[in-house]
Amino acid sequence: MLYPLWIDSPRLQEQLEALAAISEAPPPVVTRVLFSEADLRGRCFVRDLCRETGLVIREDAIGNLFARWPGKDPHLAPIATGSHIDAIPNAGRYDGVVGVLGALEAVRALKRHGFEPRRTIELIVFTAEEPTRFGIGCLGSRLLSGALTPEKAAALRDPEGQTLEHWRAKAGYSGPHLNSVRLASDGYAGFIELHIEQGPLLERENVPIGVVESIAAPSTLRVRLAGSGGHAGTVLMPERRDALLAGAEVALAVEQAALASGSADTVATTGVFRIEPGAVNSIPSRVWLEIDLRDTQLTTRDAALRRIESAVPEICQRRGVEFQLERLNVDAPASCDRALVDTVLAVCRELSLPAKKMTSRAYHDSLFMARICPTTMIFIPCRGGVSHRPDEYSSPDQIRDGVLVLAQTLAKLAA
Amino acid sequence: MLYPLWIDSPRLQEQLEALAAISEAPPPVVTRVLFSEADLRGRCFVRDLCRETGLVIREDAIGNLFARWPGKDPHLAPIATGSHIDAIPNAGRYDGVVGVLGALEAVRALKRHGFEPRRTIELIVFTAEEPTRFGIGCLGSRLLSGALTPEKAAALRDPEGQTLEHWRAKAGYSGPHLNSVRLASDGYAGFIELHIEQGPLLERENVPIGVVESIAAPSTLRVRLAGSGGHAGTVLMPERRDALLAGAEVALAVEQAALASGSADTVATTGVFRIEPGAVNSIPSRVWLEIDLRDTQLTTRDAALRRIESAVPEICQRRGVEFQLERLNVDAPASCDRALVDTVLAVCRELSLPAKKMTSRAYHDSLFMARICPTTMIFIPCRGGVSHRPDEYSSPDQIRDGVLVLAQTLAKLAA
Repeated sequence: MLYPLWIDSPRLQEQLEALAAISEAPPPVVTRVLFSEADLRGRCFVRDLCRETGLVIREDAIGNLFARWPGKDPHLAPIATGSHIDAIPNAGRYDGVVGVLGALEAVRALKRHGFEPRRTIELIVFTAEEPTRFGIGCLGSRLLSGALTPEKAAALRDPEGQTLEHWRAKAGYSGPHLNSVRLASDGYAGFIELHIEQGPLLERENVPIGVVESIAAPSTLRVRLAGSGGHAGTVLMPERRDALLAGAEVALAVEQAALASGSADTVATTGVFRIEPGAVNSIPSRVWLEIDLRDTQLTTRDAALRRIESAVPEICQRRGVEFQLERLNVDAPASCDRALVDTVLAVCRELSLPAKKMTSRAYHDSLFMARICPTTMIFIPCRGGVSHRPDEYSSPDQIRDGVLVLAQTLAKLAA
Repeated sequence: MLYPLWIDSPRLQEQLEALAAISEAPPPVVTRVLFSEADLRGRCFVRDLCRETGLVIREDAIGNLFARWPGKDPHLAPIATGSHIDAIPNAGRYDGVVGVLGALEAVRALKRHGFEPRRTIELIVFTAEEPTRFGIGCLGSRLLSGALTPEKAAALRDPEGQTLEHWRAKAGYSGPHLNSVRLASDGYAGFIELHIEQGPLLERENVPIGVVESIAAPSTLRVRLAGSGGHAGTVLMPERRDALLAGAEVALAVEQAALASGSADTVATTGVFRIEPGAVNSIPSRVWLEIDLRDTQLTTRDAALRRIESAVPEICQRRGVEFQLERLNVDAPASCDRALVDTVLAVCRELSLPAKKMTSRAYHDSLFMARICPTTMIFIPCRGGVSHRPDEYSSPDQIRDGVLVLAQTLAKLAA
C-alpha cells in the first residue's frame, strides 16, 4: 500500500545547496574533512534541521548523530536510515549528503501526510565515512558495529602524527569514552541508506532506482618508504636510494595487480602519494602512499592484495629503500538483507518506477551496518557515473524519486 | 705574500649556530624558503652582523644584499664575495651560509690585522639561490646578471599561483622596479664564492681546498599532468586516465634518461611530485612534477633533456593524460676565470694547504656571476659529500681553512 506523499523537491535542493556552501574550498568544490571547521559547521547545519523537524537528538563519542522520530510502540526496534556528510578534498555535493538531507525530507513528507510511526524511525549521520584524515573509512559505522575496536581506533594517526583522541577533543566529543559507541546487534529492525550510485550503470540503462544486494570488498594499504636524500646535483645515479622512484614503481605495480587479477571488477588506486622533502634540487628521501583496492569477489581481491604485498619488498630491496607496509583495513563484502531488498523492489513496482538489483562497488556505512542489522541501499543515478569530483551531479527529479522510494519504504516498515 | 691573519673560529661557529636556529622547522632541520618569516629573520640577522662589522649596506629590488668595505681608491672596480642564506625544506646549516658568514669573518680578520683595502671589498648575499618557491634557482644572481629578464621574473608563479611581485611586496622589497636589479658587466673586478663541496671528492681524497674551474650545466623542467579523477571504487581500470600513474612513468623515464645519457656525470632528479586531490579513495586527476637535470658536459645533458621531453608526450598519449611541459631554465655550464683560479691556488700553496682543481656539479650564484665578471669558487669538504639534509656537516677546522684562503685571496686582490 502506498501513502500519497509529496516530496518538497525545491526545499531539499535549497538545503543541498546550503550544505554544499559549507566547505573548506570555494564552490563548486566541496571539501569537508573529518572534524575540520567545515565538517563541524556542516554538523551544526544538519543538527538544526533535525531539531526543526522535531526529531530527538543524541550524539555519541565519535560524533555519530542519531535523530529519532519516536514510534507509538517503544518495544519495537527502530528502523534506521542515514549516511554521511563528510567529503574528501575536491569533492562534489551529493555523495552521502543525499542520504542525509534526503532522509530528512522523507521524514518531513511523512509528517506532512500525518503519518504516525508505530516503530521508531531514526536518522543516523555517520562520522568520517571518508578516509581522508586517518586513511581508514567508515570510522563511525566501524565503531558502532564493532568492526573497529576502540583500542585500534586509539592507535590511529593522521599524517601529522595526531591521534583520533586529539581530534575528538578538538571537535568537542571527548567527554564519553570510545567504548560507549558500540551498539547491540539487535538494536535496529533494519537500515536503509539512500545514495548516489557513483557509477555509470543506472544512467546508462536509464533506470531511476538501484536496489543494492551486495557491497564490494574494500581494503586499504599504507606504504611508507625511506630512502636516502641528498643534493640533486652531486649524488651520482648509481649511489642513489631515491624513495620517489621506489614509490613510482609501487604505484605502477598496484595498477598491474588490478589488471592481472583475472577479474574486470578489481580496481586498485594509489590515491595518496606524498614525498619529502619535495624540493626540486633534493633527492626524495621519503614517500607515503595509500592504496585502495576493491573487488566484488573476495578471491580476486585477495589475489591482487597478495600481488601488491609481494611487489613492495621486491622493488624496495632492488632500490635499497626501506619500507613499512600496513593493512589499514581488509574488509569482507557484505550481503544485503533479502527481505529488505524485496520491500524496496515492491515499493518501486507500486510507484511504477523501474528498479534494478545491483552491487555497490563503492563501500558505504551500510557495509558495517549490515553486521548488526538487516541492511540495504537505494541508489539513484548520477551523471556520467562521476563522483568524488566537483562536477558530481544528480538531477532534482532523480533525487526526488530516491527520496520518495525511501519515504514509502520507511512508512511500510514503521507502520 | 701572506698576511698574518687569525680566523676567529669559535665566533664564526656561534654565528653559524645562531643562524641555523632561525628556521621554519625545529633543529637540526634548517628550512628557510624565499621570503618566509624565517628567511626574513635570517636576513635581519646577517644585516645586523654586517653593520657591526662596519660595512655599508644596500639592498636591491629583489632583496640581494650588498655590504661594502670601501677601498681607498674609489676608481677601482670592487672585488666581491658572498653566497646565499635561503635553505630548501629539511636542509642543513652550511650550504650557502658558510660563504656568507665565512666571508664576514674573512673581512673581520682583515680588519683586525689593520688591513686597508685599496680596492673596495663587497659581500653579496643573493636572494633565493634555492628554487623552492618558484621552481627556478638563483633568482637574485640571474636578475643581477641579466640571465633572467624582469619580464620573465614577473611571469613566475608559485604552486599557489602567487607572483614574485606578491612575495616581494610581502617582504618589503617592492619599492623600486625589478628593472633596477641588473648590474653592469664591468661592475666587479672579480667574484669568489666560498662553499661546501656538496659532493664526496675532497673528503675522499683528504684535500682541504677545492678550486672550481667550471660549473655544471643545470636545467629544470616543470611538467603538469591532467587526467580524470573519480571514485576509486567505481571507475573500472580500462576507463581510467590516472594522472599519478602517468607521473610515476615520467619519474622513471627521468631516471632512465640520466642512466642512458652515455656519461656517468649526468644526474636527473624528480624532486617535486604533488598530486591532486590526494585522497585514498579518489583517482588522482592532476600531478605537478619538477625535474632537475645536470651534467658537466652540455652534449650529454642535452641528450638526456631530449629523451625526457620525448618520453612525456609518449606516456601521456598512451594514458590519455594531458600535459604541459615547461623549461624553467636550461643553463650553459660556466668556465671560471683562469687568473682567479691561479690566485687562489697560489694562496693555498703559500699556506701549505693541499688544493685541487675541480668541477662543481651543484650550481651556484657563481654560475651567473661568471657572466658579468671573472669568477671562481673555493670549496671545502663536507662529511660524506652529504648536502640538502639536516646531517650536512663541515668541521670548524675545515671551515676555518676555507675562510683563511678566502681572506688571503681578497687581501691579495684588494691590496
